[in-house]
Amino acid sequence: MAVEVVYRSSRDPERLFMDKAEADRYDKMLELAERLSEVLHKAVPSLSEEQGEELGIFMAKNRDVFAKAFKSQPDALEELEIEAASE
Amino acid sequence: MAVEVVYRSSRDPERLFMDKAEADRYDKMLELAERLSEVLHKAVPSLSEEQGEELGIFMAKNRDVFAKAFKSQPDALEELEIEAASE
Repeated sequence: MAVEVVYRSSRDPERLFMDKAEADRYDKMLELAERLSEVLHKAVPSLSEEQGEELGIFMAKNRDVFAKAFKSQPDALEELEIEAASE
Repeated sequence: MAVEVVYRSSRDPERLFMDKAEADRYDKMLELAERLSEVLHKAVPSLSEEQGEELGIFMAKNRDVFAKAFKSQPDALEELEIEAASE
């Protein structure tokens, strides 16, 4: 038996990481997802909470592709391999 | 009476512009909006067609802010002044 260090994002304490950099990336992804869900929900109030969350997570996970698409290349969105969020 | 040149995007033939550059910006905005609606709809199939369109238009109109947010500054989303889409 030994004591080990594990890392987690305070936004999702259930999920533990052995690698700090990975925990950090995960935390940043969740931060972006939360902010996206919030603004999308304000812009389109008919979204359910679940839909808002799914949209935020989906876009935050693919942030590089969306960054390109918004900057100058809408085509970049074709790179996305989309697995529909489970209901 | 005189003949004048007006411009329009083939994506929305109803809307006419006196200025070609403005028509061009509008066409690019609609292109991005369409592509966004499509990918968001695939990712979150429970979205209605209307919700997908509203999300696409909202984000495409604010593409600079979203480009920043996805690139590196989620805070940028606070700049958005959100007027909820009319139902």
